[in-house]
Amino acid sequence: MSDAISNVLAERYATASMRAIWSGEGKVKLERELWIAVMKAQRDLGIPLPDGVIESYERVKDTVNLDSIMQRERVTRHDVKARIEEFCDLAGHEHIHKGMTSRDLTENVEQLQVFRALQEVRFKSIAVLSGFAKRASQFRDIPMTARTHNVAAQVTTVGKRIAMFGEEMLSGFGQLESVIASYPARGLKGAVGTRLDQISLFDGDAVKARALDAKVVTYLGLPLSLDAVGQVYPRSLDFRVISALCDLASGPSDFAKTLRLMAGQELASEGFAKGQVGSSAMPHKMNSRSCERINGLHLILKGYLTMAAGLSGDQWNEGDVSCSVVRRVMLPDAFLAIDGLLETLLTILGQMEVFEAVVAHELQRYLPFLLTTTVLMEAVKTGAGREGAHEAIKEHAVAVARDLRTGKVNTNDLFQRLANDARLGLSAVQFDAIFESGKANSGDAAAQVDAFSQKVKKLADKHPTAAVYEPGTIL
Amino acid sequence: MSDAISNVLAERYATASMRAIWSGEGKVKLERELWIAVMKAQRDLGIPLPDGVIESYERVKDTVNLDSIMQRERVTRHDVKARIEEFCDLAGHEHIHKGMTSRDLTENVEQLQVFRALQEVRFKSIAVLSGFAKRASQFRDIPMTARTHNVAAQVTTVGKRIAMFGEEMLSGFGQLESVIASYPARGLKGAVGTRLDQISLFDGDAVKARALDAKVVTYLGLPLSLDAVGQVYPRSLDFRVISALCDLASGPSDFAKTLRLMAGQELASEGFAKGQVGSSAMPHKMNSRSCERINGLHLILKGYLTMAAGLSGDQWNEGDVSCSVVRRVMLPDAFLAIDGLLETLLTILGQMEVFEAVVAHELQRYLPFLLTTTVLMEAVKTGAGREGAHEAIKEHAVAVARDLRTGKVNTNDLFQRLANDARLGLSAVQFDAIFESGKANSGDAAAQVDAFSQKVKKLADKHPTAAVYEPGTIL
Amino acid sequence: MSDAISNVLAERYATASMRAIWSGEGKVKLERELWIAVMKAQRDLGIPLPDGVIESYERVKDTVNLDSIMQRERVTRHDVKARIEEFCDLAGHEHIHKGMTSRDLTENVEQLQVFRALQEVRFKSIAVLSGFAKRASQFRDIPMTARTHNVAAQVTTVGKRIAMFGEEMLSGFGQLESVIASYPARGLKGAVGTRLDQISLFDGDAVKARALDAKVVTYLGLPLSLDAVGQVYPRSLDFRVISALCDLASGPSDFAKTLRLMAGQELASEGFAKGQVGSSAMPHKMNSRSCERINGLHLILKGYLTMAAGLSGDQWNEGDVSCSVVRRVMLPDAFLAIDGLLETLLTILGQMEVFEAVVAHELQRYLPFLLTTTVLMEAVKTGAGREGAHEAIKEHAVAVARDLRTGKVNTNDLFQRLANDARLGLSAVQFDAIFESGKANSGDAAAQVDAFSQKVKKLADKHPTAAVYEPGTIL
Amino acid sequence: MSDAISNVLAERYATASMRAIWSGEGKVKLERELWIAVMKAQRDLGIPLPDGVIESYERVKDTVNLDSIMQRERVTRHDVKARIEEFCDLAGHEHIHKGMTSRDLTENVEQLQVFRALQEVRFKSIAVLSGFAKRASQFRDIPMTARTHNVAAQVTTVGKRIAMFGEEMLSGFGQLESVIASYPARGLKGAVGTRLDQISLFDGDAVKARALDAKVVTYLGLPLSLDAVGQVYPRSLDFRVISALCDLASGPSDFAKTLRLMAGQELASEGFAKGQVGSSAMPHKMNSRSCERINGLHLILKGYLTMAAGLSGDQWNEGDVSCSVVRRVMLPDAFLAIDGLLETLLTILGQMEVFEAVVAHELQRYLPFLLTTTVLMEAVKTGAGREGAHEAIKEHAVAVARDLRTGKVNTNDLFQRLANDARLGLSAVQFDAIFESGKANSGDAAAQVDAFSQKVKKLADKHPTAAVYEPGTIL
Repeated sequence: MSDAISNVLAERYATASMRAIWSGEGKVKLERELWIAVMKAQRDLGIPLPDGVIESYERVKDTVNLDSIMQRERVTRHDVKARIEEFCDLAGHEHIHKGMTSRDLTENVEQLQVFRALQEVRFKSIAVLSGFAKRASQFRDIPMTARTHNVAAQVTTVGKRIAMFGEEMLSGFGQLESVIASYPARGLKGAVGTRLDQISLFDGDAVKARALDAKVVTYLGLPLSLDAVGQVYPRSLDFRVISALCDLASGPSDFAKTLRLMAGQELASEGFAKGQVGSSAMPHKMNSRSCERINGLHLILKGYLTMAAGLSGDQWNEGDVSCSVVRRVMLPDAFLAIDGLLETLLTILGQMEVFEAVVAHELQRYLPFLLTTTVLMEAVKTGAGREGAHEAIKEHAVAVARDLRTGKVNTNDLFQRLANDARLGLSAVQFDAIFESGKANSGDAAAQVDAFSQKVKKLADKHPTAAVYEPGTIL
Repeated sequence: MSDAISNVLAERYATASMRAIWSGEGKVKLERELWIAVMKAQRDLGIPLPDGVIESYERVKDTVNLDSIMQRERVTRHDVKARIEEFCDLAGHEHIHKGMTSRDLTENVEQLQVFRALQEVRFKSIAVLSGFAKRASQFRDIPMTARTHNVAAQVTTVGKRIAMFGEEMLSGFGQLESVIASYPARGLKGAVGTRLDQISLFDGDAVKARALDAKVVTYLGLPLSLDAVGQVYPRSLDFRVISALCDLASGPSDFAKTLRLMAGQELASEGFAKGQVGSSAMPHKMNSRSCERINGLHLILKGYLTMAAGLSGDQWNEGDVSCSVVRRVMLPDAFLAIDGLLETLLTILGQMEVFEAVVAHELQRYLPFLLTTTVLMEAVKTGAGREGAHEAIKEHAVAVARDLRTGKVNTNDLFQRLANDARLGLSAVQFDAIFESGKANSGDAAAQVDAFSQKVKKLADKHPTAAVYEPGTIL
Repeated sequence: MSDAISNVLAERYATASMRAIWSGEGKVKLERELWIAVMKAQRDLGIPLPDGVIESYERVKDTVNLDSIMQRERVTRHDVKARIEEFCDLAGHEHIHKGMTSRDLTENVEQLQVFRALQEVRFKSIAVLSGFAKRASQFRDIPMTARTHNVAAQVTTVGKRIAMFGEEMLSGFGQLESVIASYPARGLKGAVGTRLDQISLFDGDAVKARALDAKVVTYLGLPLSLDAVGQVYPRSLDFRVISALCDLASGPSDFAKTLRLMAGQELASEGFAKGQVGSSAMPHKMNSRSCERINGLHLILKGYLTMAAGLSGDQWNEGDVSCSVVRRVMLPDAFLAIDGLLETLLTILGQMEVFEAVVAHELQRYLPFLLTTTVLMEAVKTGAGREGAHEAIKEHAVAVARDLRTGKVNTNDLFQRLANDARLGLSAVQFDAIFESGKANSGDAAAQVDAFSQKVKKLADKHPTAAVYEPGTIL
Repeated sequence: MSDAISNVLAERYATASMRAIWSGEGKVKLERELWIAVMKAQRDLGIPLPDGVIESYERVKDTVNLDSIMQRERVTRHDVKARIEEFCDLAGHEHIHKGMTSRDLTENVEQLQVFRALQEVRFKSIAVLSGFAKRASQFRDIPMTARTHNVAAQVTTVGKRIAMFGEEMLSGFGQLESVIASYPARGLKGAVGTRLDQISLFDGDAVKARALDAKVVTYLGLPLSLDAVGQVYPRSLDFRVISALCDLASGPSDFAKTLRLMAGQELASEGFAKGQVGSSAMPHKMNSRSCERINGLHLILKGYLTMAAGLSGDQWNEGDVSCSVVRRVMLPDAFLAIDGLLETLLTILGQMEVFEAVVAHELQRYLPFLLTTTVLMEAVKTGAGREGAHEAIKEHAVAVARDLRTGKVNTNDLFQRLANDARLGLSAVQFDAIFESGKANSGDAAAQVDAFSQKVKKLADKHPTAAVYEPGTIL
């Protein structure tokens, strides 16, 4: 079709494993798996089923022809019916979907998609956390100017700054795990949630209908099951899931934003792909394109969160379908977005560079201001009068700040000026010592890096494959 | 690709004319039109251009091969460059994109897409407004129970209720027109908005560069041009546009929600497509699927609004591109959503049914309660004592309300009871008269319907083609 | 002040216990508690402190004079400093705030406010869940028409419908508990998170500084502590908290919306306060004001969620304070809103009424349509030909649906018509039996009510005080 | 009340003129004005009214006792009734509110509040735009490094950068004006919008009722009137208004964000209040607190936008009041937020500083990279071979970029290195000339500043009082 419009998130940003969950073909396969699981469970519970039927369905399970299904839909004007017919024709039997309503199929398959996608997100998050820990450890002891209000405030280390964002993500990761661990299934509960249709199938035997429901939920792999539901599962579950994705993306987004800030001062760069070089004509121009993308993808998630929030608390009676079109858009796209975000972030963590000389140069500029109380203390210790020393420091500090802003000086020469001021009685050598010890004094930064790394290590040890996952090439 | 994921909004809901604006192919064509327009303007302003060059480009303008372009992008790793090469190779020349930066191309083309999409929305909105006016006039004089707090409050007419939602949309339409009329172009202003590159192309002649900019904006057809911009146009423009779409969709969404409520009481139905019938087994089940879809699409717009709001006010310096991925998703999808919404609404307006008997029956149930003050007045006029009459009315009204809720009676027999109560001295015939005149007393409802229809008629007279636009078949 | 503007949520909707947490006075007290806790911990770790100092501070802890503090702020132009001076002047000492930065105070106090407010929400949620369980059990076996797409679909029970919303809230409650259980403290970590200031206070002893931090977190009662933070705790924590509130409010909001729908058909009412009566003139007009308020308060929470989402992922470096004004508004107001929502909901659960006769009448109207497949089965069993029976049913069903909508009949007489049709061979008595058994056939509804109630009972047993909490009088 | 919670936005950020519109007292006065206006109009249309009545009401119009009203509300349990009684008792008459329903009062008064608040916003916006123009002109010709992706890209001027944000706000201002000019009144239309109550008052004379409605709208000063409405005006109007505020705040928010970025590199500062100085101990620490506040207030507006969006398109029938609690919060607070934002911005525009030396120093660092193509051109002109020259430039540029990042050099010495490279044949003097002319070459920046200033001047000429409005002292 000449006016075909692709799903941008799938095409440009997401990876194959996430696409597989949400593609038309992927969904058809999940549906077929569910139908087969239901048939098996029904057979085990006494619903008669000729030999070989299940095998016939299983044989053709992966034969997916979306065009053929679409042609059937144009005739039946009913999407589920079309997919039933296609599968039955392929298998040569008519035994699926017994006692099921459309929502018994679609709600459960969508929950399965969500649940598998959440696990995919968990997998990649572990890789990202490992990347954060690795980088934090690498730069654990490089002192740098910490900023509050975007202005120099105290000393920290590059590694600590990275660990700080990693720690935030780790907290969001805990939230993700809790959502996964308590994600409840709607199960096979019929048109309005009372299990009436399956109870009828079992000739009024509610115990069997409950057993069937339980077996199907077990098949889905979901940890819990809801008791009292309507036609649909509560849409607050979708909200909870997308909230968890937003939460998870916050640490990464903070990191990306800060890296963009650092790149603007050439303290760091998100790096280049191997083999890639900056334009030779514009060698300074290392754009933080991938970091910007992370911030953009986070915002996209927030947009889908608005949609999810809008659906939650808006159910009429046992369920209406004003949520239908919204969920068709929001669910796949939110997961494609977080997938692209994690893949992009992994790439950055693999390629980022810290320009230590520039970091040191910045610190040189601000550190003297940050150490004036230390200077005062030392001067007094050496014998200077407190008032005079204080006055001298204040005079010079204000002058240096002004001279830096008016361009009279380009580097912070406060310590030189103070060394030349007799009122303090401290030598240049002493000032150098104050500077060096101040530079090294990043408090507990290194220990905090280690604490973060330890927590990630534990996680990585539990999920070794995830921890070493390498991203593919991003656009 | 087996894991291909389509754009749901494009595939299931939007129409061909809107898809054409946002498709990959559509965008390539718009870019080429822009390049040609720039070339012509540059030539007119003195940039030498061999004869026949423009004609060569024009000849191949519509030859779009997205695969070929993608293959070039894989080599150059630069999307704009790939599209330049493709077009030049097709034309056999290298004369496009002179003095232009990527953003000179992409910003302007995206604004052009937005602007044309807005006009498309305007077109279909006129058709919708005409539909509202037609239905409002049709049911102009059918009295019905107006509800506040979802509870019977006073009499209105079915047509007035429809006009009320139409009036809201008309107000949103005015807003849309104002956004279109004041939508300003960024124009050809170079890498950071200073027009430096075009001024250089014209050997420092800023006047010519300004003239070129003006010519291009004229070509785009945009009504205004911004003077001081950066690399990009202000993202609050995107916010403004999507806000206008949300605003426009509010009246429709209110209407759809109310029709869903009415359908629940069988007062009305969104109707069926010609030839379609309700399931014979479940003849009562007329689901308001299309109305639900409208509410869903409105919510989708609100999600994109969150994205647009997140971008606005977040520009760094002359522009960063954290907005890039967001806009790739949000702009097409917001317009595809509103397009689907309008198309769906047109279908509903074409097929909806009002069940007048049920409407009358509902009014019969509530009207006596609403007319008790009239009864009192008439009783007093006829000679009853005020206090006694008031007491009698109160007694019976409370009893009837209780009896209706306890099921003792199924219809509101308040007037029968009052007719039998000697304290009031009014006959059954007199009560019938009070009921009939009360039923007819919907105040200015009919005149308000007419006032709304008149405004729509004016609009339709200005846009006769739009007013009679008929929707295609929806899913 | 004649132009004073009160906090609407505090004044009209929230309860005293929640207001106490967020009031100016309440915050001052929490700050003082924190300062005292820090002093004690510092003393225990060896920081010298004269005898009686702590007692002096404790003595005046609750003497809060906001006007005096504000006057100090006007002089110092620094809010924390003003509050330090006030407390010290009252106590007659200057020993608080040692080695602390402003954020060491404010971040921890705000986390304490959040944490205590979360517990308050948990408390009232348990009361609400108990209310849901009580009502679900009360109406456990009242059959009613379940609706999907707002149209009759199958039988459920009134209790099951209530349990369904309760179950959703219970799931949100689990989420709330998980957020509480994993809510991590920032702790005492200094200006940029490195604990530098406290380490200096302890003469370079990082171990002591860590111990102090741990003691303070223990005092706060928070379950966890973050290792690597900046000036502030990650704002994704605020997002997570407000998300949990939105999640928790979803079940209630679904319930309120459905009760508004039911009230529109007089199936139920949110009830009146004891002693309150409907207007005698308008006895039908029982507005669902409180339900509407719940939906409104849920939307308010979604607005604050947008603010929280906007802050998350937007941290620059070790922290900026673009979040400051937002959090001043969003945090109190979100908790005041959920508090008002829960209080309102408790009131509704205490006063709501179900009009069983109207519920039964509605079921009478729709049930015959829902039982046509049963009729067919019975007819065939009795000896009727399948084709003829099917044809007869279809004919009559379509006719009845049409007659109901055109007003030819007011009640669903399908079964009467079928009883008179010889093709089916079923007597009126047999039809009555089908109707009665169909009406009673709400599948597993009752068992689902019981399952929900059991879960709530467990919770109530753990929190007996909360479970019997009674709301105050609402506006 | 010890747990009193104030409205933070009113107390800390908004100005008296905006507070006056939204305060409890302010609203009571507006209601009384409306009642008097209705009385006058009714009298003019023939409703009998004793002499002196209107004067009696007018005399006590400004005697507002909120406590007394609240005491009445506790008795009547009806807020409007309480205010009617209070006003009547004060006046000694009972002639107000004839034929009016509560919504006839409250909807119109709220629209009046919105409308006056919009005009207040317009007033301060003009002052802000004048401030932008003044600053843009002041720095019109100061060359600076324009950045895209937060990385140096080309030359612009400081004034142009400011004008860019001003231009965005000017566009948002146009939007605001269009919303004001087309803001339509609901008018006096009774309980469900049919004007039934006023028609009854005029004994069935609809023409008089329409005339009354028109007179009241004229009194309100609103430019337009809606014909077909329900109980309430369409909530999309609230959405439209808050959208316009968000739009208007976008340019300011972009500006504030960029100023925060610039402050981080000491290119500029938001300045200090007169008399205020930086801490002498930390003279470098000039926090952009006010800029951060602007970004925060913009985010707050986006939160209220979510609320407004949630209300729009959610009307049931002629109107429910699930919007009530939301609008009580959202409307005042959105206007208080924008008011605080504009006041803060005016303060910044009055106090901001640009550190021209630092700006120049930054340009010195990046400009050589940006001028390499010019160098190549000049070298070739002077006789160098193209290939050799290109090779030389590339070599040195890459080396300088590397040396800057590794700290080998601290300033960009590319031109020195190139001057020493014989392959190019250009002297140091020639390089100085290239640098100087490059620095001055900010394209059309100055002209764009002028164009922006001209537009603002036109506006200021129309609104001279607004243009010179000076902000009060902010917190």
